[in-house]
Amino acid sequence: MSSQQRSLADLRQDEYRILHEADLRDYLAGLPAVAGRLGGAPEAWTISEVGDGNLNLVFIVKGVAGGIAVKQALPYVRLVGESWPLPLSRSHYEYLALTHQARLAAGLVPAVLHHNEGLALVVMELIEPHIIMRKGLIAGTLYPRFVGDIATFLARTLFFSSDLALPAAKKKEGIAAFAGNHALCKITEDLIFTDPYREAEQNRWTQPWLDAAAAGFREDLDLHVAISRLKLKFLNAPEALIHGDLHTGSIMVTEGSTVVIDPEFAFYGPMGFDLGAVIGNLLMSYLASAGHERAPGEGRLFEVWLLETIEDVWTEFAHEFLELWRTEAHGDAYPLTLFPGPAGAARLEAERQAYMARLFGDSVGFSAAKIIRRILGLAHNADFELIEDPKQRAICEARSLRLARAMMVETSSFLTIGAVTKAAREVRDWQPDFAK
Amino acid sequence: MSSQQRSLADLRQDEYRILHEADLRDYLAGLPAVAGRLGGAPEAWTISEVGDGNLNLVFIVKGVAGGIAVKQALPYVRLVGESWPLPLSRSHYEYLALTHQARLAAGLVPAVLHHNEGLALVVMELIEPHIIMRKGLIAGTLYPRFVGDIATFLARTLFFSSDLALPAAKKKEGIAAFAGNHALCKITEDLIFTDPYREAEQNRWTQPWLDAAAAGFREDLDLHVAISRLKLKFLNAPEALIHGDLHTGSIMVTEGSTVVIDPEFAFYGPMGFDLGAVIGNLLMSYLASAGHERAPGEGRLFEVWLLETIEDVWTEFAHEFLELWRTEAHGDAYPLTLFPGPAGAARLEAERQAYMARLFGDSVGFSAAKIIRRILGLAHNADFELIEDPKQRAICEARSLRLARAMMVETSSFLTIGAVTKAAREVRDWQPDFAK
Repeated sequence: MSSQQRSLADLRQDEYRILHEADLRDYLAGLPAVAGRLGGAPEAWTISEVGDGNLNLVFIVKGVAGGIAVKQALPYVRLVGESWPLPLSRSHYEYLALTHQARLAAGLVPAVLHHNEGLALVVMELIEPHIIMRKGLIAGTLYPRFVGDIATFLARTLFFSSDLALPAAKKKEGIAAFAGNHALCKITEDLIFTDPYREAEQNRWTQPWLDAAAAGFREDLDLHVAISRLKLKFLNAPEALIHGDLHTGSIMVTEGSTVVIDPEFAFYGPMGFDLGAVIGNLLMSYLASAGHERAPGEGRLFEVWLLETIEDVWTEFAHEFLELWRTEAHGDAYPLTLFPGPAGAARLEAERQAYMARLFGDSVGFSAAKIIRRILGLAHNADFELIEDPKQRAICEARSLRLARAMMVETSSFLTIGAVTKAAREVRDWQPDFAK
Repeated sequence: MSSQQRSLADLRQDEYRILHEADLRDYLAGLPAVAGRLGGAPEAWTISEVGDGNLNLVFIVKGVAGGIAVKQALPYVRLVGESWPLPLSRSHYEYLALTHQARLAAGLVPAVLHHNEGLALVVMELIEPHIIMRKGLIAGTLYPRFVGDIATFLARTLFFSSDLALPAAKKKEGIAAFAGNHALCKITEDLIFTDPYREAEQNRWTQPWLDAAAAGFREDLDLHVAISRLKLKFLNAPEALIHGDLHTGSIMVTEGSTVVIDPEFAFYGPMGFDLGAVIGNLLMSYLASAGHERAPGEGRLFEVWLLETIEDVWTEFAHEFLELWRTEAHGDAYPLTLFPGPAGAARLEAERQAYMARLFGDSVGFSAAKIIRRILGLAHNADFELIEDPKQRAICEARSLRLARAMMVETSSFLTIGAVTKAAREVRDWQPDFAK
């Protein structure tokens, strides 16, 4: 009997198979809590596959009472196909990360309703009426709640998985629990930290305008040293359980709510990688804005908001993280007993500031890495891709590359987030040679 | 039937029990390879318990044909007793580390003949006629092979478990495999990185002469910041599979051979911790030498050799490590494709030197931490303890503390190993106030 001939009932409910609409309906009907949430007869549920990411199947299922989202990992990279296999276990790590985040940042991640390890399947609450933040930003929408929410998400998920909050044994357990997610880390290691800086088949950029910039980046040894140091940190610094892919496509928003999704790249890595993802993607949104204007100056207010948002993301994150450190430091690092009395307290506070300065430097470097990979690497983003005039797109991208190079090579000259937004503002009106 | 009434035959051969001479004899007789190595009738084997370390039972077993060493972990810290439990699993990690080291540094670690996980038992070749290096150093013996051997051991075990040699997936596997050894790490975290700098019941020092120094170290906030940064690195930097306890009591020597033993503290940590252990312990040996002189100047030649040895340990380690990096860099860090052509090669070489400079700084800081813990913490070492006149001992210790404080707080002023030996030479003749 071939597998095609077997009926669904013959299959073990947790045996991996790619779910199509009919199987999914039967499967969900067998989960009382999920079926109850949807309401009505399973036959009446609407199911649509909406995955627009690079890796997975995503179904939206709606019934008379409510909706859910179902995410199933495929055994390969969806963007590329079966020629690029990718382990299903990423669904396990996504589930682990989601439950970690839900515990620490309730309301800022989707609630998990069901998880099936064998099927590489996670059933979550439907996040609505939210949209993917990147789409909203391309449309020029302001999100007043975003700063507070993302700062809280970052501060709490990073702090509470760090040596500042955890005893070392617990932290090592966490590191080990995520060590198996190396195939997803490897994607980052290759596509962010390596390929954009060398000849690689999958690289692409806006031709012909960026040909010279791409060639320049492939020969720029200052940059290659800087990206190699960042890669070493990515390989070698399990500071906290990071989301690992925290761009604006992994954030869903309304004007009053923020929800972080898709932590399948999660592992214990450098905190600055998550911060850099947020800041780098907001910088791209800022520098792409000119490309989406239908009339000159139309995006001005949006751009002002974005720069403020970038500043506030760091400032509020740092504020919340430091406050947690002052009040919830139950970890093995920086034991309070070594900093007794008022002099000790003052010295520890100075050391906290020094720690944040180092973390800021990491974040600046990783921001730059996130920008460069979206312009010269495999996976581009809609902020630039949706700029219809390719030359105009190339201008926005060239500005971003110029900013990112400075951030990566001269990281230590960016002492404050204000220095970053100042540089972004300056590059906003810079014209690359090909535009003159 | 009580457990006392059960005969040995009733016990499963891998069920944990503390082995006494008779059980051990029976157990070994059941291992053909081991029994063959010993030779003759089991009744004729001599068995003596020789463990003088802090944690375990160690038996030397000899037969007509040869000898073996048997190490069994106790479920508590031997030095302290049952009130300080310690997991038997450390024997598992020791076995893993020994096999890793044997693969990379053949002949520089004891060959494992048998391992029983349940009994927390490792049977090894008998290392003879070697003695514990610390004892030889206290007697003023020179070991001409030591530098080359320890440099090779360090360079190969560290390099080949680092991101320079391993693909990231393999490295993460290794990190996870050792993550469970956290109880041993915790001993280091407490006894080296925390307790000597605060009031702790187990601390002791040579009273009354070092009372002021001990109090000073407990109030020295510059030092507390420095040790906290080192502790964070110990918690947070899985650069390589380190030995974790590489003092001169973990090294057995003859004038022509060096064997590293006892890697039960092994885990993925900062490379500088192993280097610092070797350098710090040699510095203590140097500064203890005056206390062992029976006539002034008697130790001069030995001291000259020690300072040369300290310099050569770093220099030869760095030479071998760099050579491995140039020829065996199959890891994911610093991909060669980012450094093409002669300009790329030159730039990568400069970056290698920068990497070594950072590692040297780490090693200087960790050396200092290893010195301070032996003078103000729980576990002291024979280099100082065997100086009979306590005031003379205190003078040697005070010099060591003075050197260590400078190395930890002003680490960046020690740019070369020559700067370290110069400072050691200067402090050698410094007289603390209580000696004047």
